[in-house]
Amino acid sequence: MPDHDHAIAELQRRVQDLEDRLALMQILATYGPAVDSGSAAPTARLWTDDGVYDTFPAVLHGRAAIAGMVSGELHQRLIHAGAAHLQGLPHLEVDGDRAVATAYSQLVLRDEATDSFRIWRTGVNRWEFVRTAQGWQVTHRVNRQLNGDAEARNLLGAAVDEGRAQDGG
Amino acid sequence: MPDHDHAIAELQRRVQDLEDRLALMQILATYGPAVDSGSAAPTARLWTDDGVYDTFPAVLHGRAAIAGMVSGELHQRLIHAGAAHLQGLPHLEVDGDRAVATAYSQLVLRDEATDSFRIWRTGVNRWEFVRTAQGWQVTHRVNRQLNGDAEARNLLGAAVDEGRAQDGG
Amino acid sequence: MPDHDHAIAELQRRVQDLEDRLALMQILATYGPAVDSGSAAPTARLWTDDGVYDTFPAVLHGRAAIAGMVSGELHQRLIHAGAAHLQGLPHLEVDGDRAVATAYSQLVLRDEATDSFRIWRTGVNRWEFVRTAQGWQVTHRVNRQLNGDAEARNLLGAAVDEGRAQDGG
Repeated sequence: MPDHDHAIAELQRRVQDLEDRLALMQILATYGPAVDSGSAAPTARLWTDDGVYDTFPAVLHGRAAIAGMVSGELHQRLIHAGAAHLQGLPHLEVDGDRAVATAYSQLVLRDEATDSFRIWRTGVNRWEFVRTAQGWQVTHRVNRQLNGDAEARNLLGAAVDEGRAQDGG
Repeated sequence: MPDHDHAIAELQRRVQDLEDRLALMQILATYGPAVDSGSAAPTARLWTDDGVYDTFPAVLHGRAAIAGMVSGELHQRLIHAGAAHLQGLPHLEVDGDRAVATAYSQLVLRDEATDSFRIWRTGVNRWEFVRTAQGWQVTHRVNRQLNGDAEARNLLGAAVDEGRAQDGG
Repeated sequence: MPDHDHAIAELQRRVQDLEDRLALMQILATYGPAVDSGSAAPTARLWTDDGVYDTFPAVLHGRAAIAGMVSGELHQRLIHAGAAHLQGLPHLEVDGDRAVATAYSQLVLRDEATDSFRIWRTGVNRWEFVRTAQGWQVTHRVNRQLNGDAEARNLLGAAVDEGRAQDGG
């Protein structure tokens, strides 16, 4: 039944796309629990072996560097005082075995003096992914603070670029 | 094979519903990057030609008015000082070619003096959508601040209305 | 056509998994609108009849206790002054008729004096679910503040546990 062959293949393609999108969301939803629990290896495993995390002014190259950030003194001090690395609803673009997520992130810190939490950082992230035999992994993440500099606005703008949108993207 | 016909049609309906939900999430995930990058046309294109954005006390009618908000002096000043328009996880209801999302939003501003970010606004949004030949578009968005007024609570309550829930909604 | 039988059964399994994940997200997206509108019964219905909400130091047992929290004086005072119970992007694990979501939550309160909103609470939540004839329901939710205590970090760490991840989880 060629009609069934065609319908099933089309469904398989659509279901794969949905699975890809939820898998990418899951990576963003894993990042906070990984770093805020101080889980260095699970954090690093979100990236490819040679993945990059560019979080100005630091640029971390490879899993060992990313794990080192989590184990490092600054990060450990933050999470032992109370810290939440929140990730926003991602804008997703999937193109075969590559994908990009654009999402806000916030770093919220416990402030005992005021019995509340302070937003220390609010930035935009461009996450680039590759499909591997172990599922989607991050090849490159760049994080820039929304402090008025053009760089963060440009990262946000790339997700809604008009030229591409007018091409039907 | 009528059994296969039936099973395939049922799968197509379920996959369409999933695609609809992810497409609606994507619209909310696009709004922030569009406005915070100052991208007026991509923001306006999220709405239908005659779509409405009711953000008290302003009520913007149509794409030109929505684009004008993004290009306007107040908005430009905010994003050049550092601003993030965050959208929360949406409660979704899809009914054929119409849909409603209920979600929180926050406007977070850079505060250099305290090296942190301040939440200027936290509100609830009711987004109403229509399915068009170009995909889902916003017909009406109403935003109300959670400042204790009943109006915002009523918008939230509409998403969890008991009468509808008891009908199996 | 056994090939079609197999392909259709596989698609049905994959679509069910996607539907489960979106249904679990919808529960988290319903919680805020339910409590912030003061909708006691819709809040309680998210749980099983004997479901538990452990929000230190209170441990609420069953729907009546959960509804009572929403109707109670403290909660009513908060929502009449302006309150938002925000839920983050959930990390999801589905295993047959059981599921776990790990997600951040924030309680944001209107602060008229500074024309802004204050983050009173930021915590981690482990939501445990069971599939019922009425859909997914919460059997147990534990909420712990990210105030530097190990308990919250341990809840986050459980979502990214290495032993399980190395088993292919």
